Amino acid sequence: MARINANYLKLKAGYLFPEISRRVSAFAKAHPERQIIRLGIGDVTKPLVPAVLDAFHQGVDDLASSDRFHGYGPEQGYDWLIQTIIDKAYKPLGVELDVSEMFISDGSKCDSANILDIFALDNVVAIGDPVYPVYNDTNVMIGRTGACDARGYYEGIVYMPCTEENGFLPAFPEQKVDIIYLCFPNNPTGAVATREQLKGWVDYALANDAVIFFDAAYEAFITEPGIPHSIYEIEGAKRCAIELRSFSKTAGFTGVRCGLTVVPQELKASDGQGGQVALNALWNRRQSTKFNGVSYPVQRAAAAVYSATGWAQVQQVIDFYMENARIIREGLQAAGIRCYGGVNAPYIWLKTPAGLSSWDFFDRLLDQCSVVGTPGSGFGPSGEGYFRLSAFGERANVEQAVERIRNGWGQ
Amino acid sequence: MARINANYLKLKAGYLFPEISRRVSAFAKAHPERQIIRLGIGDVTKPLVPAVLDAFHQGVDDLASSDRFHGYGPEQGYDWLIQTIIDKAYKPLGVELDVSEMFISDGSKCDSANILDIFALDNVVAIGDPVYPVYNDTNVMIGRTGACDARGYYEGIVYMPCTEENGFLPAFPEQKVDIIYLCFPNNPTGAVATREQLKGWVDYALANDAVIFFDAAYEAFITEPGIPHSIYEIEGAKRCAIELRSFSKTAGFTGVRCGLTVVPQELKASDGQGGQVALNALWNRRQSTKFNGVSYPVQRAAAAVYSATGWAQVQQVIDFYMENARIIREGLQAAGIRCYGGVNAPYIWLKTPAGLSSWDFFDRLLDQCSVVGTPGSGFGPSGEGYFRLSAFGERANVEQAVERIRNGWGQ
Repeated sequence: MARINANYLKLKAGYLFPEISRRVSAFAKAHPERQIIRLGIGDVTKPLVPAVLDAFHQGVDDLASSDRFHGYGPEQGYDWLIQTIIDKAYKPLGVELDVSEMFISDGSKCDSANILDIFALDNVVAIGDPVYPVYNDTNVMIGRTGACDARGYYEGIVYMPCTEENGFLPAFPEQKVDIIYLCFPNNPTGAVATREQLKGWVDYALANDAVIFFDAAYEAFITEPGIPHSIYEIEGAKRCAIELRSFSKTAGFTGVRCGLTVVPQELKASDGQGGQVALNALWNRRQSTKFNGVSYPVQRAAAAVYSATGWAQVQQVIDFYMENARIIREGLQAAGIRCYGGVNAPYIWLKTPAGLSSWDFFDRLLDQCSVVGTPGSGFGPSGEGYFRLSAFGERANVEQAVERIRNGWGQ
Repeated sequence: MARINANYLKLKAGYLFPEISRRVSAFAKAHPERQIIRLGIGDVTKPLVPAVLDAFHQGVDDLASSDRFHGYGPEQGYDWLIQTIIDKAYKPLGVELDVSEMFISDGSKCDSANILDIFALDNVVAIGDPVYPVYNDTNVMIGRTGACDARGYYEGIVYMPCTEENGFLPAFPEQKVDIIYLCFPNNPTGAVATREQLKGWVDYALANDAVIFFDAAYEAFITEPGIPHSIYEIEGAKRCAIELRSFSKTAGFTGVRCGLTVVPQELKASDGQGGQVALNALWNRRQSTKFNGVSYPVQRAAAAVYSATGWAQVQQVIDFYMENARIIREGLQAAGIRCYGGVNAPYIWLKTPAGLSSWDFFDRLLDQCSVVGTPGSGFGPSGEGYFRLSAFGERANVEQAVERIRNGWGQ
């Protein structure tokens, strides 16, 4: 009989967001009169901006005409989109990239999962804790781990705790690792790495011949000057880092689907036979064989994000979400709740009051304030005792949620 | 040092289409006065139909409004699209499917590659020869094979020759296999399986506990009554087959990107421990973790393919391509060239005249007729001595290509 990939059976059954849905549904049923405000899942709520919509429509119109029809495009993405991103998003940071080094995809989630394809299974992988669950689960699914222990740690993965004590910036792994996932601004903690901190990681990776997967999906939310937006702002990073970016949060593309991955030509890994191979060529082969490029009108829409008008409009939306973040952060602080993030990221990571567990706080917040957030323990064991609120939402809802929390939890 | 997936190094370097491009470029440079007609790559040439364009625009417009904005959608695709496909494309065949059994994706190429994720590496895989190269290469990349031999066969894969002698319908493998790729209507040969022939494969798979990957990307091009459009028209297929479909050729979506995969709830495979696992649950977990759904406006556009107006318009385009196919097929026959396909598929598979090799015929056709096609040997060793012409193209070009071939090769 055909046999399944039994690594899938190691995955814990209960995923975070279905459990949240279940509890919210039960609450809503029991309390039909209560107006529930959701600050849980990190999905955008604002419409696409006009410049992007115009370009999207134009892209569709092109497909109406024999002369401007676009069939199969390059699996790597169209040069005009890649060059635009390089010129508008990387050159201003002092980062030079060649068109061949960037690959347009249908989203960072896919890329962060698929990038594992080009690495040997015996690489040792380090991930943060708490962490975006996809990093963890895809390593389990591909067969890099043993079973899950009682804490929720899979055998074979090196977990890097990110806690209040270390400012949510993990220490370097004590054992030898080959692949390191970093996400700044971080989901879920909202933490960022300074230039010096990021340089520490690049130097560490170079010294240890490790590859960094740098997830910069939230870089557009950085408001403080001096915080790196790209790992390639750090000297030497092109020799050790792959960077992922996304249009999802930057430009409201969660339902449109577009992201990108940078694999510098200088970046090499061992072939296991004493030679070295450029990862760019491998990723190119992977994408050419297993992917067929991003929808043409979507690429047109993505390029418009970087027009002068588009960027100004997108920036207004980001400013709006970051004002939400400020309202949530300051409201929580006024209620005596310690919180982090929300300055360079659309997430507020709060320490649950009174030593409550993440899920107990979830239940109390839902019961007392009718506000839904995300239990920190759902992102990993070190997230226990923390809670994530998202700054995506309508202003009136955000303000009301904060008021309810101040009334529910304030001194 | 981090180590690469060294299985990638087993892949043959020279891919078919880059080599075609190279030869065509060289020819065009040497003969700038010659007008080259391309009937090579299987990409559509007609614009999207009006009903699909309208829905596509409406989908984009939804993203302009707070009320109708769509962020993250279900990774599996929207129910309204899935239900539409079930009602319009499967029910008329007598095939009942549940919404949970269909997964919308960004294309059949991705699905036919990604489906390998949920199977153990030690499954023995059988593929046709000639074949769509993705089936072969993705098995190499994932590590299921040894090296490539002088003929072009990878150690560990069971190849099923499809030749003139067996009517391009492979014999059942003589050794035990666990996974069988079937593609009808076939790319590249254009062959179809009758109900009896397909029943033979389903019975074989059930008797041998094998899983069939049934690629039906070209089912919309079937013109002869009685030829199955879906493997689920065959009794028992839900217990042994996964079916892939695509909007690429059906509705001109090669640049739009949408496909689907059906994984019936009844379909199970071994967990290697004496138990059985539903493949539907595994694929659902795979897609939920590694994929984020198809662009919302694209799904709106795809649903419009199945509106009464949309389907009539799409059918006109298919009829146009199939008239091209008839012109090519009859033209070649009049020139004394034996050819196959082109009746239920947009590909004509011809036997090279005078015993020429596929590449020699490519060069002669380019040199004498300025017509570009695809050498059969590029699809596998048993494609040697064959050649693929595609029916996608403008009518005037197709007619002129045929006239040139008749003058160049006719008796």
